Amino acid sequence: MNKPIGIFDSGIGGLTVVKAVFKTLPEEQIVYFGDTARVPYGNKSTLTIKKFSYQIAQFLVSHDVKLIVVACNTVSATSLDWLTSHYLLPIIGVIEPAVEDAIKATRNNKIGVIGTRATIESNAYQNSILHKKPNAKVYSYPCPLLVPLAEEGWLDSPATKIILNDYLAPLKKKGIDTLILGCTHYPLLENTIREVMGKNVTLVNSADSVAKKVKAILHKNKTASDAKIKSPNKFYFSDIPRQFSTLTKNFLGVKIKYIKTTL
Amino acid sequence: MNKPIGIFDSGIGGLTVVKAVFKTLPEEQIVYFGDTARVPYGNKSTLTIKKFSYQIAQFLVSHDVKLIVVACNTVSATSLDWLTSHYLLPIIGVIEPAVEDAIKATRNNKIGVIGTRATIESNAYQNSILHKKPNAKVYSYPCPLLVPLAEEGWLDSPATKIILNDYLAPLKKKGIDTLILGCTHYPLLENTIREVMGKNVTLVNSADSVAKKVKAILHKNKTASDAKIKSPNKFYFSDIPRQFSTLTKNFLGVKIKYIKTTL
Repeated sequence: MNKPIGIFDSGIGGLTVVKAVFKTLPEEQIVYFGDTARVPYGNKSTLTIKKFSYQIAQFLVSHDVKLIVVACNTVSATSLDWLTSHYLLPIIGVIEPAVEDAIKATRNNKIGVIGTRATIESNAYQNSILHKKPNAKVYSYPCPLLVPLAEEGWLDSPATKIILNDYLAPLKKKGIDTLILGCTHYPLLENTIREVMGKNVTLVNSADSVAKKVKAILHKNKTASDAKIKSPNKFYFSDIPRQFSTLTKNFLGVKIKYIKTTL
Repeated sequence: MNKPIGIFDSGIGGLTVVKAVFKTLPEEQIVYFGDTARVPYGNKSTLTIKKFSYQIAQFLVSHDVKLIVVACNTVSATSLDWLTSHYLLPIIGVIEPAVEDAIKATRNNKIGVIGTRATIESNAYQNSILHKKPNAKVYSYPCPLLVPLAEEGWLDSPATKIILNDYLAPLKKKGIDTLILGCTHYPLLENTIREVMGKNVTLVNSADSVAKKVKAILHKNKTASDAKIKSPNKFYFSDIPRQFSTLTKNFLGVKIKYIKTTL
């Protein structure tokens, strides 16, 4: 089916998911929307997050997408069921795939979750883990400074290490063996997080497993691309913020060709 | 004249200006707007900052304000002249008052300015200082992590000190004797900034001087309040974010009574 896949995020963090989809499904066309004019969502109210994500879903639907990936943990955690109830097309969040990976990875059934305030307060990760594995112990902590640190490129500075030590100390104390990076920005800090948590803790980020899930759904619904020539990917942003090229390159790994501002 | 004063900011930082206006002009009614759904503005493009600030000015004008205070350095630095050209009523930014105070304070004519990326890239402080005092030397640096640190309450933690040392080192090296805190969030970090810069550097924040300027304009235009009973202040926000009560109390010092969400 020659329709694009829609992927959206509150900003540019979702480009880590786009990167994984590029790798797993190179033949599919992507329409991406990043809400850079209103980023970040992590401290906003659930009502406002729902309003914004509905506007974006409408925008993607107007581009005739066959499937939507919510490449934002905050939206996935607070608004996914609500959003899904408004549309007939498949809408995939980043939480279920990460939870499945974390359950596969854990040996002692102690799983940690870090994310924005909105994500952690929603209890979405905890509920999903306990639904699938009732005997698991889940420890969740909000880490609101990690997004600005990642965006500013303070990836392994002494200040970042102090802040991570502070945020992660309670998780180390609980003896978790698996940690879900519940925000699309956190993979940029993966090395420093690994250094603080130690080698025995498995870090889970959902980008790759989301891509695998998208592939499975397209296959099941028989909606995978059969185009002989792939249509160009399109990237929309509500603002072209300062540092845009550096940031997008950090997250996506390559330069974006087709960019438009909208909304 | 029994019309309110309109004050706006990208979020809650502008409440430091409201606090100063309360003190200087207790008889005036305030209508405040904080764009908490789209905060922060500091890394956004000038085009988007103009669009947002125009929407907010229109909102305040619809409340029949007699004067508008742009209690946001990023908007004042990037969009004040443009905004002023659209209205007949007086519009006051935070830059001129801070510059006047800094020029009064400096003895060696070396003035430092810190602010968001948008504020620093606009050169608004530098241009204004050099216009008033051509022999001054101005050194400006963006400090994008200070807003999230202040909002998260990391006011004097070791990580904040490391980040401030890093940001402020070049200013110390230049031998400035006056430092403009060019963002309404920075007064919360004043003690730590003073500790890093040393006692011999005067810190300038514009809240009090903006309030004095408002008083002078109301007097000059004969538009000061003559109401026997003061109308209640009104506070509008585009979102009630998480941590809202803690944050507003940190910035305003008192609890807000009349709050509505809008825009």
